[in-house]
Amino acid sequence: MAITAYQKCINPDCGAEFDRTEAIFKCPKCGDLLDIQYDWSKAKLPEKMEDFSKRWANRNQRLDFSGVWRFRELLNFCEDEHKVTIGEGQTILQQNDFIAKELGMDKGNVHLQYEGLNPSGSFKDNGMTAAFSHASLVGAKSCACASTGNTSAAVSLYAHSCGMKCTVFIGQGRIAFGKLSQAMDYGAQTIQIAGDFDDCMKQVQDVCSKLNIYLLNSLNPFRLEGQKTIMYRIIESLNWQVPDWIIVPGGNLGNSSSFGKAFKELKDLGLIDRIPCLAIINACGADTLSYLVNQRGLKWNSGWVESKEINSLYADFTAKKFSPHTIASAIEISRPVNLKKCLRSIEICDGLVIDLPDEEIKDAKAMVGKYGLGCEPASAASVAGLRRLVQDGTIDPGEKVACVLTGHALKDPDLTVNYHTKREGVLSNPPVEVPNDLDKIIDIIKA
Amino acid sequence: MAITAYQKCINPDCGAEFDRTEAIFKCPKCGDLLDIQYDWSKAKLPEKMEDFSKRWANRNQRLDFSGVWRFRELLNFCEDEHKVTIGEGQTILQQNDFIAKELGMDKGNVHLQYEGLNPSGSFKDNGMTAAFSHASLVGAKSCACASTGNTSAAVSLYAHSCGMKCTVFIGQGRIAFGKLSQAMDYGAQTIQIAGDFDDCMKQVQDVCSKLNIYLLNSLNPFRLEGQKTIMYRIIESLNWQVPDWIIVPGGNLGNSSSFGKAFKELKDLGLIDRIPCLAIINACGADTLSYLVNQRGLKWNSGWVESKEINSLYADFTAKKFSPHTIASAIEISRPVNLKKCLRSIEICDGLVIDLPDEEIKDAKAMVGKYGLGCEPASAASVAGLRRLVQDGTIDPGEKVACVLTGHALKDPDLTVNYHTKREGVLSNPPVEVPNDLDKIIDIIKA
Repeated sequence: MAITAYQKCINPDCGAEFDRTEAIFKCPKCGDLLDIQYDWSKAKLPEKMEDFSKRWANRNQRLDFSGVWRFRELLNFCEDEHKVTIGEGQTILQQNDFIAKELGMDKGNVHLQYEGLNPSGSFKDNGMTAAFSHASLVGAKSCACASTGNTSAAVSLYAHSCGMKCTVFIGQGRIAFGKLSQAMDYGAQTIQIAGDFDDCMKQVQDVCSKLNIYLLNSLNPFRLEGQKTIMYRIIESLNWQVPDWIIVPGGNLGNSSSFGKAFKELKDLGLIDRIPCLAIINACGADTLSYLVNQRGLKWNSGWVESKEINSLYADFTAKKFSPHTIASAIEISRPVNLKKCLRSIEICDGLVIDLPDEEIKDAKAMVGKYGLGCEPASAASVAGLRRLVQDGTIDPGEKVACVLTGHALKDPDLTVNYHTKREGVLSNPPVEVPNDLDKIIDIIKA
Repeated sequence: MAITAYQKCINPDCGAEFDRTEAIFKCPKCGDLLDIQYDWSKAKLPEKMEDFSKRWANRNQRLDFSGVWRFRELLNFCEDEHKVTIGEGQTILQQNDFIAKELGMDKGNVHLQYEGLNPSGSFKDNGMTAAFSHASLVGAKSCACASTGNTSAAVSLYAHSCGMKCTVFIGQGRIAFGKLSQAMDYGAQTIQIAGDFDDCMKQVQDVCSKLNIYLLNSLNPFRLEGQKTIMYRIIESLNWQVPDWIIVPGGNLGNSSSFGKAFKELKDLGLIDRIPCLAIINACGADTLSYLVNQRGLKWNSGWVESKEINSLYADFTAKKFSPHTIASAIEISRPVNLKKCLRSIEICDGLVIDLPDEEIKDAKAMVGKYGLGCEPASAASVAGLRRLVQDGTIDPGEKVACVLTGHALKDPDLTVNYHTKREGVLSNPPVEVPNDLDKIIDIIKA
């Protein structure tokens, strides 16, 4: 089918447009974020969302097998021969009646979308399959990113899968090598720079620009196109019913940005008839979005965002040498790259943002483990958010909710072990020591 | 459809039969292993294997969504209402031409079946969905196992998913709590007994018997019925072509036992026209099967296995206080429970077994990371085996091979980190330290 995608600056005073075959990521005219737009009038779309599901049975067609490209008409920015896939998106929406009961929700109304089942263990794969397809479209031969977490894992995996050289930039100081194990495992070149993360970010951009290396950072708008499919899969699993709420952890805000775009597009195309509410959950120690929206009243305002509010806060961060701090490391971010797009999603989805303390996130993580498939700490912010929003009456027990669990339970086993063995929370479940004596063992089990 | 499954002792001198609704696991008459048998003449089976795949599109039907129960006619031992599923089996067969090239195989002939994408992170889920369905059939209210690894993770996850109480028995001494993190996370009661693993095994059996608790140990023949579906999914992904070779790590030998049974049944039913060769890979430090088959000539022999060979070896182990030792912890087993059934599979599949040193397994693990989706150490025994069998001419470059990767790359990140940062093998890929200087960074990347 004809490809009518192009890139467009989100700043309404600029609105510059760029070809889909350029790797720009940030508007060269005004410095604002770029969006991927489509001329839907020329698109050939399925009449019903159900038609996408039929493809699932074509397990020998690589694009139908992918949980992302199965929906390819809705992210139609490159030709099939450029599409990179490693089978991402075989994820599960779990109806969890145990958690519904714990949180006072009606049976059947709590669903957990476990994106940890992606090949690299996090939702990032949804975005990387799209971004690497774009990298292929523009003829990139090598790629890079600065990250010590899920991004470096996903980038490294997709890079080798399409035969591209990959360099991961990390800073000095406390590096959790467990988190980096995947980048090394997947064969990425890991460069540790004598500097902090900001130095890394600067160097990776300069290096990519000098050597014509494709940069896979969070600015990349094609990543967000892939992440839209998380929403498609949620409503597919709900038999094409749109839930009342989507709840998602908020870090760099790529997910929340893409989810709003996904629903807006589906509604405009007449493929769904209503848009769910979106709740974004910050950790208290990394609550930039929550502060700006709730304390400073920041809004999308048709694209005319009050940038001075943002700039003033960031200047304050710099002056105070503020670093965000939360056990939910995947959302430990104080200057979220996709902030403005996220404000747009909040408008589209009549959304809200709250921030929660680490203790509530840790207990929610334990709840997802005890009753669900488990998740990494940051993921549990969505379930902690559900708990809080039910408690304060924002979410009604009769409403249908889908919480996005962004990463695999095995991404951070140390936190799990400490929570349980050091009795850090209300759901701590440490081992019990018992003598090698049948009666004593039976007493423990019967207790 | 009518259920005609029953349990039968594999010892031809015994051949005792038992109802499917009993939880026996070990022949009460002769102590040998039990098998699940079907009266296929009364079974209503699809005419072609392709018919199973069509179900994949029915994503809202829980049994069609499961990668195990989608093939339910082939493991038809309980009514649908007893079937327990958490969406297991959304796994990927990856054609890996990079590894094919590295190992001297023809392009298109090396495939990796990554079972780490199961909800608990290992192939065990295939078996547990079946065993827990049996537990539901017999009305079990609680369950137990002795394990510090993948089994305890899978048992704990399925137990809470069907609202069953679960107790995991572990011994004293060096416990890697990272490996136990999943059991604690999934809410299992973990009992640490003042004794070694043998003490645990004895106590768990006594406790289960006294308190009528369902025991999920490796003897359970229903687990093997679920594991058959790994083979169905492999041939499904190959467009219903049977490969020339299946290669699998050998530990307790449940997988190899079930794979032979799977192919024999499919052939008998006329659903496939030939059976692949099966190669089982032991680690040198846990090479019971390899020793007995290759040094002592042990054979299935229509069920009349020379038990005295086995007993004599095990007596020797006891006398020497022998403990198996390999970095491939998931196959660090010296008395494999399913030994006899595995001998049967070797006969069915014209199979073989070899044992390989840890170094080759570690390098193969790094190769799966560098070129594939990664895996846990024991899983890589299958790829190490492929390398060896190509080198010695057993496998021809023109033959089609599927290697089973049993567990998730994140199951043992410490080994990955050590391999790379301590330069333990030929594919070690440690981080490079560089000054915060653009030119020096560019030099490194260009090098």
